[in-house]
Amino acid sequence: MTNPAIILVKPQLGENIGKAARAMLNFGLDDLRLVAPRDGWPNEAAWPASAGADKVLEGAKIFKTTEAAIADLSRVYAATVRTRDMPKPVVDARSAGAAIRAGGKAGILFGRESAGLSNDDIVLADAILTIPVNPDFSSLNIAVAVGIIAYECFGGEVSLQGAAEEPPATKGELVGLFEHLEGALEGAGYFHPPERKAVMVRTLRNLLQSANLNSQQIHTLRGVIKSLSRDLKN
Amino acid sequence: MTNPAIILVKPQLGENIGKAARAMLNFGLDDLRLVAPRDGWPNEAAWPASAGADKVLEGAKIFKTTEAAIADLSRVYAATVRTRDMPKPVVDARSAGAAIRAGGKAGILFGRESAGLSNDDIVLADAILTIPVNPDFSSLNIAVAVGIIAYECFGGEVSLQGAAEEPPATKGELVGLFEHLEGALEGAGYFHPPERKAVMVRTLRNLLQSANLNSQQIHTLRGVIKSLSRDLKN
Repeated sequence: MTNPAIILVKPQLGENIGKAARAMLNFGLDDLRLVAPRDGWPNEAAWPASAGADKVLEGAKIFKTTEAAIADLSRVYAATVRTRDMPKPVVDARSAGAAIRAGGKAGILFGRESAGLSNDDIVLADAILTIPVNPDFSSLNIAVAVGIIAYECFGGEVSLQGAAEEPPATKGELVGLFEHLEGALEGAGYFHPPERKAVMVRTLRNLLQSANLNSQQIHTLRGVIKSLSRDLKN
Repeated sequence: MTNPAIILVKPQLGENIGKAARAMLNFGLDDLRLVAPRDGWPNEAAWPASAGADKVLEGAKIFKTTEAAIADLSRVYAATVRTRDMPKPVVDARSAGAAIRAGGKAGILFGRESAGLSNDDIVLADAILTIPVNPDFSSLNIAVAVGIIAYECFGGEVSLQGAAEEPPATKGELVGLFEHLEGALEGAGYFHPPERKAVMVRTLRNLLQSANLNSQQIHTLRGVIKSLSRDLKN
């Protein structure tokens, strides 16, 4: 199971810690580490903001220094969107997620809300992890940044449960629909002038054909035609 | 420039609207639409939470109904992580981002914080957009959900999607078709017993939605409905 440590360095608001915990658990991560949180720990404001990610908050480990927080990790990323004068490899969130899933215990450093990571923290990282953003408005909310990176680490595929498409109807059912509709339209005087009927029929058949209807949908449409044309026959 | 509309349906907290606006602008999106925001608009709480994404908030468009909010769009996604009994294609955020970058004006529906999207809103969508999450803790903060989807729309990957055939009709045209058909069926006594009307309407809307109709086809179908229902009115 991929479970990189999410390391918040000198976080300021308890609410943001709670929201980061929620975003972590949304993507199956639960190793939260806090380096010198400004308002101490535990912080009452974190719990309601976590929307039930209590186990992440209760398991949070507290460290005095970034060095201590990363001691057991084999690969560390510094999450920052800024361009820095640091001779570090830069990877995007997607590549980092793939590398993290590939193995080894990794961690990702996030800076305080107001100022981001210090150069002294970034120095400790193997690589800078960047989320591609609008260069004119690049400051991400910490929960959004944690969420995107956790999402990329999770890298799950959607199981297409419930998307089960019904198989398309048989051509016999489709032709039955064509003929039902055309009969009703004939009765309603739709095909005029008569010499255009062939073209009009083709247009309708193409339309219904391209709709890729299943049996149930054909049944529904025939009910519609029957209902609309009932009075015409009386 | 890819700029899908982000449509918040009945959002509750102004703060969340502001955070969604911030996450949008982080990835270059600025078309924010609000359907019946609970606390009215403008909402004072949105501005500080947007961290400077004022232009998104100031340009927000307000609508009374979801139908009105999507009228000019050609493709609509419903963002939900729930499994639903809805016969809709399900796409993940990455695929949706790629499809949105490929062209056509798209929009993404997000439900209210407490309850998500209603089935009546989901029915209006072409597809369900799902972010793969931890099934045991799947409820995403709205800013995180908007952020991940905006990130995927922004994403720099080259789209392999080729030129489409005819562009799909706008949602305004599609809703016009829905209402024309439903009015005709109402006149014909199709909706009975009356308590089933809502389900019957959803079935029909899902069927027409999934047919991926273009403008010309909608015009043709409206001619068919008019022809079949003409005599009912006489």
